[in-house]
Amino acid sequence: MTERQRREHDLLGDRDVPADAYWGVHTARAVENFPITGTAISAYPHLIDALAAVKEAAARANQDLGLLPARKSDAIAAACREIRDGALHDQFVVDVVQGGAGTSTNMNANEVIANRALELLGHAKGDYHHLHPNEDVNLGQSTNDVYPTAVKVATIVAVRELLDAMTVLGDAFATKAEEFRDVLKMGRTQLQDAVPMTLGQEFSAYAVMLEEDRSRLAEAALLVHEINLGATAIGTGLNAPAGYAEAARRHLAAITGLPLTTAANLVEATQDCGAFVQMSGVLKRIAVKLSKSCNDLRLLSSGPRAGLGEINLPPVQAGSSIMPGKVNPVIPEVVNQVAFEVIGNDVTITMAAEAGQLQLNAFEPIILHSLSESLTHLRAACLTLARRCVDGITANTAKLRADVENSIGLVTALNPHIGYTAATGIAQEALATGRGVAELVLEKGLLPADRLAALLRPEEIAGTGI
Amino acid sequence: MTERQRREHDLLGDRDVPADAYWGVHTARAVENFPITGTAISAYPHLIDALAAVKEAAARANQDLGLLPARKSDAIAAACREIRDGALHDQFVVDVVQGGAGTSTNMNANEVIANRALELLGHAKGDYHHLHPNEDVNLGQSTNDVYPTAVKVATIVAVRELLDAMTVLGDAFATKAEEFRDVLKMGRTQLQDAVPMTLGQEFSAYAVMLEEDRSRLAEAALLVHEINLGATAIGTGLNAPAGYAEAARRHLAAITGLPLTTAANLVEATQDCGAFVQMSGVLKRIAVKLSKSCNDLRLLSSGPRAGLGEINLPPVQAGSSIMPGKVNPVIPEVVNQVAFEVIGNDVTITMAAEAGQLQLNAFEPIILHSLSESLTHLRAACLTLARRCVDGITANTAKLRADVENSIGLVTALNPHIGYTAATGIAQEALATGRGVAELVLEKGLLPADRLAALLRPEEIAGTGI
Amino acid sequence: MTERQRREHDLLGDRDVPADAYWGVHTARAVENFPITGTAISAYPHLIDALAAVKEAAARANQDLGLLPARKSDAIAAACREIRDGALHDQFVVDVVQGGAGTSTNMNANEVIANRALELLGHAKGDYHHLHPNEDVNLGQSTNDVYPTAVKVATIVAVRELLDAMTVLGDAFATKAEEFRDVLKMGRTQLQDAVPMTLGQEFSAYAVMLEEDRSRLAEAALLVHEINLGATAIGTGLNAPAGYAEAARRHLAAITGLPLTTAANLVEATQDCGAFVQMSGVLKRIAVKLSKSCNDLRLLSSGPRAGLGEINLPPVQAGSSIMPGKVNPVIPEVVNQVAFEVIGNDVTITMAAEAGQLQLNAFEPIILHSLSESLTHLRAACLTLARRCVDGITANTAKLRADVENSIGLVTALNPHIGYTAATGIAQEALATGRGVAELVLEKGLLPADRLAALLRPEEIAGTGI
Amino acid sequence: MTERQRREHDLLGDRDVPADAYWGVHTARAVENFPITGTAISAYPHLIDALAAVKEAAARANQDLGLLPARKSDAIAAACREIRDGALHDQFVVDVVQGGAGTSTNMNANEVIANRALELLGHAKGDYHHLHPNEDVNLGQSTNDVYPTAVKVATIVAVRELLDAMTVLGDAFATKAEEFRDVLKMGRTQLQDAVPMTLGQEFSAYAVMLEEDRSRLAEAALLVHEINLGATAIGTGLNAPAGYAEAARRHLAAITGLPLTTAANLVEATQDCGAFVQMSGVLKRIAVKLSKSCNDLRLLSSGPRAGLGEINLPPVQAGSSIMPGKVNPVIPEVVNQVAFEVIGNDVTITMAAEAGQLQLNAFEPIILHSLSESLTHLRAACLTLARRCVDGITANTAKLRADVENSIGLVTALNPHIGYTAATGIAQEALATGRGVAELVLEKGLLPADRLAALLRPEEIAGTGI
Repeated sequence: MTERQRREHDLLGDRDVPADAYWGVHTARAVENFPITGTAISAYPHLIDALAAVKEAAARANQDLGLLPARKSDAIAAACREIRDGALHDQFVVDVVQGGAGTSTNMNANEVIANRALELLGHAKGDYHHLHPNEDVNLGQSTNDVYPTAVKVATIVAVRELLDAMTVLGDAFATKAEEFRDVLKMGRTQLQDAVPMTLGQEFSAYAVMLEEDRSRLAEAALLVHEINLGATAIGTGLNAPAGYAEAARRHLAAITGLPLTTAANLVEATQDCGAFVQMSGVLKRIAVKLSKSCNDLRLLSSGPRAGLGEINLPPVQAGSSIMPGKVNPVIPEVVNQVAFEVIGNDVTITMAAEAGQLQLNAFEPIILHSLSESLTHLRAACLTLARRCVDGITANTAKLRADVENSIGLVTALNPHIGYTAATGIAQEALATGRGVAELVLEKGLLPADRLAALLRPEEIAGTGI
Repeated sequence: MTERQRREHDLLGDRDVPADAYWGVHTARAVENFPITGTAISAYPHLIDALAAVKEAAARANQDLGLLPARKSDAIAAACREIRDGALHDQFVVDVVQGGAGTSTNMNANEVIANRALELLGHAKGDYHHLHPNEDVNLGQSTNDVYPTAVKVATIVAVRELLDAMTVLGDAFATKAEEFRDVLKMGRTQLQDAVPMTLGQEFSAYAVMLEEDRSRLAEAALLVHEINLGATAIGTGLNAPAGYAEAARRHLAAITGLPLTTAANLVEATQDCGAFVQMSGVLKRIAVKLSKSCNDLRLLSSGPRAGLGEINLPPVQAGSSIMPGKVNPVIPEVVNQVAFEVIGNDVTITMAAEAGQLQLNAFEPIILHSLSESLTHLRAACLTLARRCVDGITANTAKLRADVENSIGLVTALNPHIGYTAATGIAQEALATGRGVAELVLEKGLLPADRLAALLRPEEIAGTGI
Repeated sequence: MTERQRREHDLLGDRDVPADAYWGVHTARAVENFPITGTAISAYPHLIDALAAVKEAAARANQDLGLLPARKSDAIAAACREIRDGALHDQFVVDVVQGGAGTSTNMNANEVIANRALELLGHAKGDYHHLHPNEDVNLGQSTNDVYPTAVKVATIVAVRELLDAMTVLGDAFATKAEEFRDVLKMGRTQLQDAVPMTLGQEFSAYAVMLEEDRSRLAEAALLVHEINLGATAIGTGLNAPAGYAEAARRHLAAITGLPLTTAANLVEATQDCGAFVQMSGVLKRIAVKLSKSCNDLRLLSSGPRAGLGEINLPPVQAGSSIMPGKVNPVIPEVVNQVAFEVIGNDVTITMAAEAGQLQLNAFEPIILHSLSESLTHLRAACLTLARRCVDGITANTAKLRADVENSIGLVTALNPHIGYTAATGIAQEALATGRGVAELVLEKGLLPADRLAALLRPEEIAGTGI
Repeated sequence: MTERQRREHDLLGDRDVPADAYWGVHTARAVENFPITGTAISAYPHLIDALAAVKEAAARANQDLGLLPARKSDAIAAACREIRDGALHDQFVVDVVQGGAGTSTNMNANEVIANRALELLGHAKGDYHHLHPNEDVNLGQSTNDVYPTAVKVATIVAVRELLDAMTVLGDAFATKAEEFRDVLKMGRTQLQDAVPMTLGQEFSAYAVMLEEDRSRLAEAALLVHEINLGATAIGTGLNAPAGYAEAARRHLAAITGLPLTTAANLVEATQDCGAFVQMSGVLKRIAVKLSKSCNDLRLLSSGPRAGLGEINLPPVQAGSSIMPGKVNPVIPEVVNQVAFEVIGNDVTITMAAEAGQLQLNAFEPIILHSLSESLTHLRAACLTLARRCVDGITANTAKLRADVENSIGLVTALNPHIGYTAATGIAQEALATGRGVAELVLEKGLLPADRLAALLRPEEIAGTGI
């Protein structure tokens, strides 16, 4: 038995689509044309919601300007609200990686919204003479302003979720920093024993890094609030009447609750991907820091017996299929991998942005895909790292203190008091003999005992940090 | 109503899993630990098949060596064959991006195979004292040899599919090269008119590039045939008896039909990701060439009236939601985007490979993910480009010939006959006056008419190419 | 005849250095250890100047705190001022790419400054008991605060030079935008004829992009004003007395005239390379836009006869060794190449930043190298592009207007007036027959003639852009 | 006093050049046009030598074909030989990063060779009617075949030097592998104690990795032996007579001693940068492995007291300006940085290759620059790492053995004998109590003492590796 079909028409001729599909002929062509990743845009709910918000805003702007009757505008808006409430996402079936600067995504949205609006108006799907995907839903618009605007709105939502996740992780690090504030340990530079510090200082640095990254991300997000709705095809606003751009922006800001602004130069804004490149660059920065922090966590927890053994990560699964009892730092490891992915995505986005030509960048779909992946995977990584790793970290306090007392690095504390040359000699002798720094200093009469004791109080040394 | 559960146990304690799940406690932990991409390894059927092949080979090798009774080995092998026939893939539920060097993927495989084998033996799922995921299915193995071996087998299969797709695309270009063999056109260097050639030569170059890339890909694939099965944890073969590595390799080669070899130095092989880096580097090379070819196709088909307008790409969908009749080069555009993605993936793979430490690279899951994505998307891109674009390309022959006859570039043909200085003068005058090169040469008596005619026969000029 | 030598001593033992060298034993070792690029740090004058500024600031701070007698401090400051005036740069001989987080660069500076200060005090070079490279010039400092602080000061200076160059280029584009404000042309999306615009709008977009990039660069530069001087080895300020960090910052701000601030968390600041990653990310963004603009310039000037032929770049050299009269877009081409270099450098910087471990990033020298290269090459590219290309661009006005009048793209203007379906039909017929859009619209009675004429006034269409 | 000048002429008009300069007007224009990096092509001696070889080969081929009199050909050849002997390199003054696909480099070579040949023939520099840079030295050639051919010849020479350096480093690792063959140590996976191995195995892995990389590099070098000399402008061989390509190749092979071949499809060969992309990809692979090995060396030598402390790197300089006696792993660190640079260069080369359009890649100069830098810096890194680090590495044998005897990882050896579940229990108890594995196994009667002793002989365990 064959599925029921309805016949639609486009530039290429007639084509049947399933009778109960909300999408139409343009979507059907696109599905055939782009069998690339197997991932439909329905997997990007922020984008679908944003498209619906843009279409509703455009309909209301057209209504305000007398171009679209309230009946049509209301139906379109109602369909869009249903989508934002989670309905019909499964009708967004075009592949996320597609040619055409997002045309197929826009067409898919136009068709779904038109057909749902037709239903709401009591018409059959496909009865486009009552309400048309292009002439009504897309009225005064172009893919070239709708798509980047929707991508920006979707990006803002995803950024906010990432900012929240970064706060969770930053708080987790800060809590540990407080917990470990009195735990003395050796600081290291170039992996060599350097000078003493506290474990609290070490974790505090991770918290501060994240907080700085949050600030950068929030700054970068501001750039994405500038949209080009009303630019139409190339930024000249052709086919969009006077007042449309401002009306559409106003409605979209109201619908989304976002303080959106319209770009001052729409020709520039329509071809420019700078805000996405900047955003991806900041995500790469976050990835770099997260990866560095995870490298440290893995290193500090190395062992249990033949490693640094300074901290313990909470066990979250058996570590090995062959080595019983082995517990591995799997959570930091997965965060490292997300970081590598984000850094690779930044190169993809860079190339896509560079490849734009003349009045449009045709490669925005891969930018959407890569940026969205970076944002959502970083969010998952932050939450997982906080909840399944950092929260449960414990310190091997006694070992850490013994390392400090045994370390050659203590000699640095004496540098200003006995001079670099003498200090070098003590260090060399301690190294050669395995003896402690303190006893050598006393033996050679370089400092009186009480003065030395005061200088070597590790708490004193480490405490001057911040 | 709650789902029926069975209780399993691991290092962390007891844990319930759904009674009808083929996966067990280790998989359950991993699913909780890695909520990263939302994409389970079941989305990588080549990997699942390869894991099943490895597990069957290991069971048979253990049987050969008297370590596993035939009853268990047969049950394991039967379960593995079912998986390779497409069954139970939905039971491979761990996230593809995971910490732990693939441990969770290996554990997931061990558990699914064990539980299906238990069923085949007439036992209940979870009755591991009859057949144990680790002690039987994973006998003599480690994630550290199983996972990279499975990734290599999966990669080989995907490479073969890509090679086939490249042949399809190469043939499409070659067919067009033949079709366009007599179409004269201006060649260009630095986007400036250069000297004449044929459109056939232009398309032939694309075909040759692909053929060369195929050769490089086939070479790189050879490196992936070297496996480390039998290395166990770090390459010392601990827990794998003498003869195991060779027996397992032999069985795996027989099962997969692939000429696999065992690495000479298993310690090196277990920590090294060089073959993956090389493979990704070659995929990047393919991406670079494909992208360049698509850039050309888009440029040559630019217009229809204010562009180069040399060739026409077949229309595959309406090009614009706002500009009626516009047909865009959407297929080359999507191929460009896949190329950018592959180039970004290469950076991800590079970083993951560099980050390996000591006896193991813990970041192989992201390597698998990125490599698999590059392979499958490139394959889709090649097939789409061939079938939905190249096959239907037509040439604007008359315009192309007119461009040649009108071009300053013809003067280059006269360079050896009238000298660089005179030729420069003719070119400058032609440029200044808009007149043709030929008439100027005759007017100045630089060449007799018949000699000039012979020299300027475009077929002659272009024909000396190959 | 052998060069005269003086003997110095370090951890490794005695070593002769040339008697007239201002550098000493540590520098000598480093020169032997790092024969990598062949480029000495003397090739980075901003860095040398910045090092001298930091050393002078530190000496003054130590003097303020009573740790260094005025005689020594004055001599050190005098030596530093000489260096900032251009003297002794040839004594900075260590390779720019070096191990050790910049230790060798710091040591080189300490030695040169100490020996010049010794001379100023009337002592021989090498008489370090009068004034010691480590104990006096480096007093209260560590490579780990001196080097990143100097790199930041050098970066700020280079950024300011780049900002100026971007202004020059932006002004050049803006001047052309004004010059071309009445030149009508076809806008293009996806390389296909789209809708009309003006050439002025096209150049205005380049100017606006640059202006936005300047803003982002200025923002990123603010982050680099935060220094960690006073952090010493790992940020705990060990060996630096209370008040030192603030005094040193104050002196350095006064010497350089820069509004520098001290990081709130010195442990974090000492290990973090986030500001460099951010800076490089913004430079990458600039590179992407510059490259895109140059791609456009090359495309728009393609021809002269078989290309788009919209604009003419000024000839700056003969274009070919073989094709007489050929003029190539060599200036945009070199800018493209600088952009590719900057994008590659960003990956290098990313990897170096990610590889930092625990309390220090040992890989700052390659960050300095790559960042400095990106900054100075981008500056050269901007100036060259402005002065040797953009300033001399001319437009082929008549051809551009003819393209508009002939274009199918005009039909888009009729879309809101005759509807998408009818417009599509007109476009298809125009394409099929080669006829003009206007005559077809009239012939079919879709619009009255006067209405059509008003709608199709290209000035009208293009004018609604901004 | 002004320098003496001679007047030359080109497309742009008259221009004076210094009377004693061997370069001429084209070079002078290029120097003005490309003030980008400040690095002249004279800094690339392999390239200068290769250009001279190509020019000599072309002259001889032209002589063979009767197109160039022996007198001119001899003079050109003599000038070229002088250059290859090291003369006149300072006359190659154009910036290495230049627009125009290498045109300026080719012009610079034509001019220098012509003027030197003129001198040899008894004429004044600039008397081009006796022997002309373009009409004689460049006869039958184009930048588009000369430049890539010269880059390939230069690359082959640099690759050979790198291969030699890799052998030196590989031998250094292999020597240490032999020296450490009986040194037992704990192997680690995911930075956690895994199972025992020997330090010899660890170093052997580094040697094997290098050997494999050498093989890949040698393979990639084969691709670079395919040249396009005779292709002229776009591969059609316009202006090059029948037989020229083969004659020129034959002479070039003889002059350089390299088994060069001519590409089968010259149109493809002239636009394709695949061989460079492949080469760079392999260099990236080498960089990844080198960096990984250096990461390991730094980790294994961490300490001296609060690190892994397994091996000692030879001290090559004082490690700190502030921490006396600190010795840092500066040689591995500089190798890491070279690796990051090579990986960044690969992205630059990738982008440059992708950006090629139609019949030519205009961006080969940045490919030359980046590839050359990667090759020479990798060579320096290998030699420095071998001679100043690996050769002097020593092992802390006693500590390493103690770590093995103390390690939980030993329990894995018992896995096949007591089962995964029991082994897990032992491991957990050893971890909880700090007791040794062996005593627990005996206490619980899991194995008889003699059997346990045999199984736990570390030599036995580690010996099964290869």
